[in-house]
Amino acid sequence: MTKSHHTLGEEMHSWATELFPLNRSLTGDGTIKTFEFFAKKLENFEFINTPSGTEVFDWTVPKVWNMRSGYIKNLAGNTLVDFGVNNLHVVGYSEPVHGIFTKDELREHVFFLVEQPSAIPYVTSYYRDMWGFCLKFEEWENLGEGPFEVIIDAEKIDGDLVYGETFLAGESSQEILFSTYVCHPSMASNELSGPVVLTKLMQYLSTLKDRHYSYRAVFLPETIGALVFLNNNLERLKLNLVAGWVMTCLGDGGNLSYIPSRLGNTYADRITLKTLSDHGKLFMKYSWLDRGSDERQYCAPGIDLPVCSVTKTKYGEYAEYHTSLDNLEYISPEGLEESLEFYVQLIENLEANRTPKIRTIGEPHLSKYQLYRSTSIKNANNEDNLLNVISYLDGQHNIQEISQLCKIDEQDVLEEVEKLRVNNLLS
Amino acid sequence: MTKSHHTLGEEMHSWATELFPLNRSLTGDGTIKTFEFFAKKLENFEFINTPSGTEVFDWTVPKVWNMRSGYIKNLAGNTLVDFGVNNLHVVGYSEPVHGIFTKDELREHVFFLVEQPSAIPYVTSYYRDMWGFCLKFEEWENLGEGPFEVIIDAEKIDGDLVYGETFLAGESSQEILFSTYVCHPSMASNELSGPVVLTKLMQYLSTLKDRHYSYRAVFLPETIGALVFLNNNLERLKLNLVAGWVMTCLGDGGNLSYIPSRLGNTYADRITLKTLSDHGKLFMKYSWLDRGSDERQYCAPGIDLPVCSVTKTKYGEYAEYHTSLDNLEYISPEGLEESLEFYVQLIENLEANRTPKIRTIGEPHLSKYQLYRSTSIKNANNEDNLLNVISYLDGQHNIQEISQLCKIDEQDVLEEVEKLRVNNLLS
Amino acid sequence: MTKSHHTLGEEMHSWATELFPLNRSLTGDGTIKTFEFFAKKLENFEFINTPSGTEVFDWTVPKVWNMRSGYIKNLAGNTLVDFGVNNLHVVGYSEPVHGIFTKDELREHVFFLVEQPSAIPYVTSYYRDMWGFCLKFEEWENLGEGPFEVIIDAEKIDGDLVYGETFLAGESSQEILFSTYVCHPSMASNELSGPVVLTKLMQYLSTLKDRHYSYRAVFLPETIGALVFLNNNLERLKLNLVAGWVMTCLGDGGNLSYIPSRLGNTYADRITLKTLSDHGKLFMKYSWLDRGSDERQYCAPGIDLPVCSVTKTKYGEYAEYHTSLDNLEYISPEGLEESLEFYVQLIENLEANRTPKIRTIGEPHLSKYQLYRSTSIKNANNEDNLLNVISYLDGQHNIQEISQLCKIDEQDVLEEVEKLRVNNLLS
Repeated sequence: MTKSHHTLGEEMHSWATELFPLNRSLTGDGTIKTFEFFAKKLENFEFINTPSGTEVFDWTVPKVWNMRSGYIKNLAGNTLVDFGVNNLHVVGYSEPVHGIFTKDELREHVFFLVEQPSAIPYVTSYYRDMWGFCLKFEEWENLGEGPFEVIIDAEKIDGDLVYGETFLAGESSQEILFSTYVCHPSMASNELSGPVVLTKLMQYLSTLKDRHYSYRAVFLPETIGALVFLNNNLERLKLNLVAGWVMTCLGDGGNLSYIPSRLGNTYADRITLKTLSDHGKLFMKYSWLDRGSDERQYCAPGIDLPVCSVTKTKYGEYAEYHTSLDNLEYISPEGLEESLEFYVQLIENLEANRTPKIRTIGEPHLSKYQLYRSTSIKNANNEDNLLNVISYLDGQHNIQEISQLCKIDEQDVLEEVEKLRVNNLLS
Repeated sequence: MTKSHHTLGEEMHSWATELFPLNRSLTGDGTIKTFEFFAKKLENFEFINTPSGTEVFDWTVPKVWNMRSGYIKNLAGNTLVDFGVNNLHVVGYSEPVHGIFTKDELREHVFFLVEQPSAIPYVTSYYRDMWGFCLKFEEWENLGEGPFEVIIDAEKIDGDLVYGETFLAGESSQEILFSTYVCHPSMASNELSGPVVLTKLMQYLSTLKDRHYSYRAVFLPETIGALVFLNNNLERLKLNLVAGWVMTCLGDGGNLSYIPSRLGNTYADRITLKTLSDHGKLFMKYSWLDRGSDERQYCAPGIDLPVCSVTKTKYGEYAEYHTSLDNLEYISPEGLEESLEFYVQLIENLEANRTPKIRTIGEPHLSKYQLYRSTSIKNANNEDNLLNVISYLDGQHNIQEISQLCKIDEQDVLEEVEKLRVNNLLS
Repeated sequence: MTKSHHTLGEEMHSWATELFPLNRSLTGDGTIKTFEFFAKKLENFEFINTPSGTEVFDWTVPKVWNMRSGYIKNLAGNTLVDFGVNNLHVVGYSEPVHGIFTKDELREHVFFLVEQPSAIPYVTSYYRDMWGFCLKFEEWENLGEGPFEVIIDAEKIDGDLVYGETFLAGESSQEILFSTYVCHPSMASNELSGPVVLTKLMQYLSTLKDRHYSYRAVFLPETIGALVFLNNNLERLKLNLVAGWVMTCLGDGGNLSYIPSRLGNTYADRITLKTLSDHGKLFMKYSWLDRGSDERQYCAPGIDLPVCSVTKTKYGEYAEYHTSLDNLEYISPEGLEESLEFYVQLIENLEANRTPKIRTIGEPHLSKYQLYRSTSIKNANNEDNLLNVISYLDGQHNIQEISQLCKIDEQDVLEEVEKLRVNNLLS
């Protein structure tokens, strides 16, 4: 991290500001533009397209939804509610509509929150055809008696569901996965904070020298995008995935929060708890029952990947969640930076605690690599540590465990492993 | 159970009374008649025949033994001992004999119990050719000095070993097995109580709607019958058997007794202990070392099926065991009913605690089945329980465990599972 | 053991005495002659040859090294240091050399121990070409000022690495392995004590009737020899090896010492600890970190065989180690005999605690073998122990464990198992 933390937070916040107005959904122009933004920030950012109608496990890829405009006017021609002002005003995946409606008729298509009268709620209807508007309760109260002219100029057409993926190869084929979602319109913590922190994290990783693990970042529409990604990659992930995290709600001022994997005992869980514990600050530990994002798919029966999640204040746990109040003021440069800092520490822990594996069967012929005295004489056994470490390089012990087993410092373990690495003795 | 308990017990006892006089053995007319009796009570009762001489694992199916008559007379023509009066008087599988014997000669062929002078012992010699009589000790004492005319009119001929099997398909191919034996002549607890309780249990099961598991009942000659059944079905049982029980000694007034499987930790053991514990009454817990019936075969090394046994007073633990005192007075309608009641509770526990499995990979697309709000808005997450339950439907957790994991009542778990079942989402 | 212990110790010591002068190394005439000596003592002793240059895992089989003579003379013609007097005087695998050297030049090629001025150190340089002499420090002090004439008449030629192997088949295909090494010149505890005790142990085993296990003894050059042996036999060893021991340092007066396998919980470890504990005398328990011989290869990641080691005073733990002071006086007939005695007890424990396996599926038909009453009457269950023992003969419990499970004496378990064995009921 060469820039100061403050600067990094400002940069992530400015990205969120730039992306904020776009109308993201499972598909459509705003989502594509968001991917294109990240594609400019990250090398080898790939777009993976899947046609509408494709069957994916129990699901079907939906049509592409594009919004042009949407408003409610009174018959005097005054615009009362305008999608152009806030894209939360139209229900996600609304059907097009144009007509005159009485207030009672309109009531059937309007969502508001009585308890949060100045918040526009976020509402979607991906798989049932309907149209609707979302208003502040106070807007509804002041809307007048109608009738109203209502226009939603939208289309649902065959096209592609898109997700973005970028991969940074490490020296090992073992993979670390970060997954974030890109399908929410103008909201900041849930969800822009996730993609902007992940983008910065991958920029950081691209500058990290001697990465041991390979790192994969996916930016995808929640649920259906995760299922498409899993459908494309499940076999490889089952083989290579060491640990993964779902990244969202990373911009506010709250404490870090940990949502475990389904059974709670994967390497992702263990290294998360170690990192949070090293971190020293108070953190929230949730139950699997409190989950709610793509860990639902990553940990589903039959998939069972080692994936958990670390957020700041968790989705559903703050009043602004899924409303227009989850805005650019709700998140801050400081909050984004603290989240980035945590994930950087996590990567540092992953890299420092990797589980290397010796490439040879039987001990390597160390003197061939000048790692063993070529002339053997008693009382000259400086290679004991190396031999001890080698004897535990079975891919099932990490550096810290080997340190305990060999009764030497972790630094000493790392030095011995390094001798092997430079001689291409690790697999 | 629509009839009152008293009535059910009377009915089972009346069946035992009707069957009591028949001369059952590993094979033969009395055994066939006993199977025919049960075949009239149970639908789809199949007779499985295996010819004498068939090799079954380390065993050979014996010839068929049929008894016509057997008695000891004095030379005055008085009948002193008569198979027609009690079929225990002739050793099971006796050779035919007709001759005049001195008392010393007869002594070599006579069995009695000095400690139980008014009990006829039950003696068999299935695999060594011999003939013999079983007497009360007091009969022996009063037999007179002889010589005696001895007749056993019996035959051992090639034929079939027979066992009976009935199957009630459930919605799942997973199987529950009940095994009882039919090879003992006029004795009541060991053994008629086993088959009559099992028959009533299967009648009950046939009326049970929405059986999840499939249920199989086998009525077979002990040991050789169990081995023939295993030889015919081992592969399927290894795949599908969830739990099984050996049913015998179920008619007396003693406490329930549990004999564990060989390693003691199968699902049969766990659900047995749960049911006994729910039951609340004192019960005996034996060791595997105390076993003595067909669990010997079901749990043998290389077979290792999840089978244990629940009896009332266990074979070998009551003085009347294997004598003419194990008669229709030793068992009672109440005793039979208590046993039936336990097995009914066991089935209720099995059905209530089944281990359903989700059919999909990843979460099912719930809104497709109207199991999820089609329009998503915050604070409307009524589907949390359903998603939580689904996340544990991996076929390795039963309803009770899922209840504990999801922190909701078992009834709520069952409701959620039912929603999935009606939508064909369970495998 | 028909001979008295004293006599056996004397015999092993006399073998060591006869072999002591030979110039053993990884290869060469002295090593071959040593193998030939053991081949005369043991039946079916096989020589396994592997050509120089063969790749074995990460290693390469070295050239053959033969020494003819080596000495340091002063220019007056006096021989100051002579390989003919003690073969430790020349560094193992020295290059040939002939020349006149100043004392400073010679210093670069001389090894001595300042702390042990009257000991010649043992030095080797197997894989780096160099030449060198090993002297007592007091010899070096008294060598004079030079210049010196130096001759090493040696050759390194293509040829074969040789190891020796002998196999005693038992009634089971399960194998016990003893591994010792033959590559050290004139030193007694490390190493001649290992091969002479193993030779006597195999002689003892060849006279042992009714061996259950098959026994394999390998005599091999340390490290490279073990790797060649593993390369030739790994698949079979993974399948059949029950337990193995590395035998070395077995001739001195110290306590027995146990060096565990890598993870410390193999059957070799358990039976070793049981034998040492039965033995009753104080013993040293080392850690895997203290290992240093061929258990390094047998337990390496990816090999992981159940092999540990029992020595007397362990290599590296006595001052005479790897010097000319590790001589025939350092070891004694008594010391060798105590080691032999331990390994004989170990074999007795292995044989007594074997893990037999029933051959049949389901219980055997015991009455067919006269192992069960042919006539069955209550209170005559003398076969309970037999049936209980059979139920644990799954190949995963040894006699002692079965004794505990069945709550009967080990002797009783053995009697029951013997009944099965004589009837060919064990696999």
